[in-house]
Amino acid sequence: MYSEKVPEAIDLSHHLSEVSKARAISPLKGLQKYMTKPGLITMAGGTPSPEYFPFSTVSGETLIPESFPLTAQVILFGAGAGKKEKTTSFTINKWPAHTGDLNLATALQYSPATGLAALQKIIQEFSEKVYQPGYKNFTTLIDAGNTDGWGRAALTLLNQGDSVLCSEWTYPSALAGIRPWGIKTVPIAMDGQGMRSDSLRETLASWDEAERGFKRYVLELLPARLNALTTYSGPHVMYIIPVGQNPTGATMEAQRKKEIYDICVEFDVIIVEDDPYYFLQQSPYVPKDQRHRRRCLLFDLDRREVYRSTRTEFLEVRFDYQGRVIRLDTFSKTVAPGCRLGWYTCNPQFAERLERAGETGTAAPCGFSQVMVASLLLNWHYEGYIRWLRALRLQYQQRRDAFIDALADAFQLDMGIEINGHRKGSLVYHASLKPERQFSEKSSMRYSKPLFSFVPPSSGMFVWLKLHLEEHPSYTAVGYKALEFKLWTALAEHGILFGFGSMFSASAVTDETKGDGHFRISFSSTEHDDMKKAASTFALVLREFMKDQ
Amino acid sequence: MYSEKVPEAIDLSHHLSEVSKARAISPLKGLQKYMTKPGLITMAGGTPSPEYFPFSTVSGETLIPESFPLTAQVILFGAGAGKKEKTTSFTINKWPAHTGDLNLATALQYSPATGLAALQKIIQEFSEKVYQPGYKNFTTLIDAGNTDGWGRAALTLLNQGDSVLCSEWTYPSALAGIRPWGIKTVPIAMDGQGMRSDSLRETLASWDEAERGFKRYVLELLPARLNALTTYSGPHVMYIIPVGQNPTGATMEAQRKKEIYDICVEFDVIIVEDDPYYFLQQSPYVPKDQRHRRRCLLFDLDRREVYRSTRTEFLEVRFDYQGRVIRLDTFSKTVAPGCRLGWYTCNPQFAERLERAGETGTAAPCGFSQVMVASLLLNWHYEGYIRWLRALRLQYQQRRDAFIDALADAFQLDMGIEINGHRKGSLVYHASLKPERQFSEKSSMRYSKPLFSFVPPSSGMFVWLKLHLEEHPSYTAVGYKALEFKLWTALAEHGILFGFGSMFSASAVTDETKGDGHFRISFSSTEHDDMKKAASTFALVLREFMKDQ
Repeated sequence: MYSEKVPEAIDLSHHLSEVSKARAISPLKGLQKYMTKPGLITMAGGTPSPEYFPFSTVSGETLIPESFPLTAQVILFGAGAGKKEKTTSFTINKWPAHTGDLNLATALQYSPATGLAALQKIIQEFSEKVYQPGYKNFTTLIDAGNTDGWGRAALTLLNQGDSVLCSEWTYPSALAGIRPWGIKTVPIAMDGQGMRSDSLRETLASWDEAERGFKRYVLELLPARLNALTTYSGPHVMYIIPVGQNPTGATMEAQRKKEIYDICVEFDVIIVEDDPYYFLQQSPYVPKDQRHRRRCLLFDLDRREVYRSTRTEFLEVRFDYQGRVIRLDTFSKTVAPGCRLGWYTCNPQFAERLERAGETGTAAPCGFSQVMVASLLLNWHYEGYIRWLRALRLQYQQRRDAFIDALADAFQLDMGIEINGHRKGSLVYHASLKPERQFSEKSSMRYSKPLFSFVPPSSGMFVWLKLHLEEHPSYTAVGYKALEFKLWTALAEHGILFGFGSMFSASAVTDETKGDGHFRISFSSTEHDDMKKAASTFALVLREFMKDQ
Repeated sequence: MYSEKVPEAIDLSHHLSEVSKARAISPLKGLQKYMTKPGLITMAGGTPSPEYFPFSTVSGETLIPESFPLTAQVILFGAGAGKKEKTTSFTINKWPAHTGDLNLATALQYSPATGLAALQKIIQEFSEKVYQPGYKNFTTLIDAGNTDGWGRAALTLLNQGDSVLCSEWTYPSALAGIRPWGIKTVPIAMDGQGMRSDSLRETLASWDEAERGFKRYVLELLPARLNALTTYSGPHVMYIIPVGQNPTGATMEAQRKKEIYDICVEFDVIIVEDDPYYFLQQSPYVPKDQRHRRRCLLFDLDRREVYRSTRTEFLEVRFDYQGRVIRLDTFSKTVAPGCRLGWYTCNPQFAERLERAGETGTAAPCGFSQVMVASLLLNWHYEGYIRWLRALRLQYQQRRDAFIDALADAFQLDMGIEINGHRKGSLVYHASLKPERQFSEKSSMRYSKPLFSFVPPSSGMFVWLKLHLEEHPSYTAVGYKALEFKLWTALAEHGILFGFGSMFSASAVTDETKGDGHFRISFSSTEHDDMKKAASTFALVLREFMKDQ
């Protein structure tokens, strides 16, 4: 499909970690030339007989791709139980009726870490159609979701003591996966689009300078035999969530992506792009009272845009003409997390090593999941899945809107443009307590300052609140972290669980750390009434909290 | 259920690797006290709404536990396709009809690495009933099968450069999983029961001696500040497959297990017991012509024995009164490998760290698999699953017998007791070529010596052949490894794939290594006619091969 002019990936094998390089070659390599021999009798593997797989068939009843509308609804979402659903169904038999049919005898057997051929094909075609990587020989490889994907990628690229570039606020599980290996993080400042390219360049350039100095020092002053002991190197791996960044909800525009990519080319950095929220991109939040008129227009636009976005617009890897990006896709947010299924898109050199890492980890992903997801996507076809994604995106947009509407009901919201910090350039909503009739004028004035603020997210599942706790009586005495935790606990005691902010800091947070408290609030699975209750409880708790010594 | 006298696990936390100790505490720990609050509104996690899980129901049609007989059949096994099967079925809905019902809204959502409550309960009860660990507070923890299980256990216990005790012949994937981390293997000699306790003691005692000497040397001669750099320690982790050992098929008796356990107590070694073939234990092989009479008797015995074995007899962990064994169980051989589901049985100290390791790896095992396997086992009940296992064991025994019968048809088999080497004490079958009428007397004499030999396995899926290649014209010139590979290739060219032996060596094998060639032949999934063809082709190829220069 690609023209002659599209390049192949460059050699990036110097990025492979010691562990990755030490992995064996494929154990199947010696067998491959014989595997297609007609009538081959294989007695090499410890494969149980499928005759003894106790599953004769498995079936699934699945929603049709058109299950959710492409235009906003008055009733947004509900519990779902008891709702009338339109479904279609499929059944997978143990033995295939026709060669090539999905079947349990194959799906439930041991398999290479590359998974079922049918699913491989779906994934490769999907990546090719939607992402159109900028080099010819990109490879897709199934994994057990992005946690598995990142874990394998990290240990394929990083040695103990290495450093990873990441955004100053980031997904804590990604860091939890590498910290035990002594891998350090290098937080890069953010703005309203996520990671800042100028800060990235600054960090890498000064590192480069320092490293050169260090190398000179080592070569000149230390005995030659100690050189092998002195490992010192700048970060050469980046972990980034460019769309619906977790926790901030920021989405990077093409220009920024290109800048970051070019810097990574310059400093030879591999980009691991964790992109679970790519298909949950949302139109800007519009306050409720203005929404009806504007939404009609927005959604007309939106319909075209979404369609474009999934076909030709947001081509994540197209900047990548060198094979420098390891892209992580997952079915967790678009089908279900329990699938434990996702995939890499990357150069074949890395894919081969990631496959080896898979063999001694998860092995192949679960066979039930592979047939279930493959059947779903085969039944829906590409166009059906795109239709599903377009509606899904709108569903989450409506949930976001509903939660922000609930905040608008419970608080006084005022808009402004942020000029500093990790939300720079974004439209920010500042929330202050509404005056209470019972309150004296003095009290009501005391609470008139904003107590928190947020940028409506452009993708994903989270509203990232910045807490303005300077007005709290204990602020000077105990600092922001203690107050953040105290407020979080007060909310939990009132039956509301938010994510507390310091978890998401890429730098270590101690009691002495200066900064602002944050909460990450997920609007993705809470029912409408509960959202309203959460917002009003938040106002209640905050009012008490600010009075508290 | 346990009496007061049964001890609790001892403190073994000094065995945790640096990586394991560096893992965070449970991220859910801070939330736990609030999670059971009635009416709690959770907005902390990135959980999609189950409303958007496109699966409304999943169903399974499963064989009944009595699908295979408990007595030997004349027609043993076939392709399975088109066979009339008795099945029952189940359906899992997205939303539970009653609280506690298995449901997709939960199973396909993110979950802790401990998995679904229903499956946890089944596994805990099963381990308690069948294995009866010798300490009170044993913990079971779901994993994604034994490859995942071993990988996590290894990195929870071992630092880079550490050594693992294992049998001289062992499962190659277990070693492939640790070698990239610079973890070395210490192969222990075997006999007909697997790992030898006397060799184990010898290895550990001499290591202990050497280590004491080394420590003295380090303390006396090196400057104190370098002490931190000198890590030197004996192996403190064992990897062992005590039942149906892979590749040799050996099964350890209780006395040997106890000896090995006691040595591990003495030298403070943690035992990782990989036991996939526990339920595939088989009665001794009886030559075909003697089988009918003896089998009737054997199977009468067998019926009682199997029942006892799964209830009261083979209690793997009961020796373990300290919590020193990490037992690995899998559904791969008893249900299907594609489930990617297994579990640990171990002390709670290790279980907690293994759970943390899971969180950043596979996360929870696949939700489809969890509901499928849980539904199967809930429908079958404990007794049904035991009934299934009893029949399964006999099925694999019949497959083993059929393959050895095929060898007996294609070769001249003579019995003897092995007095040396890794099969010491076992009944060995020596195979020589049958005389060909066309052959001159001289030629026929030349081939009258045994060309390979084997011990019928007592469990599992493999016949482990020792090749006797000394008679090959090139033996002196090229050595055994080249001949093993040449014969393997000749077989592959004739459409027969065996596993080649040097893969299973725990020591590095080079062209210069002295020893014997081996093949591991799996009888677990090959059809009866193919077994016969494999045996006769083997005879044909071997005859040509021995003439070959």
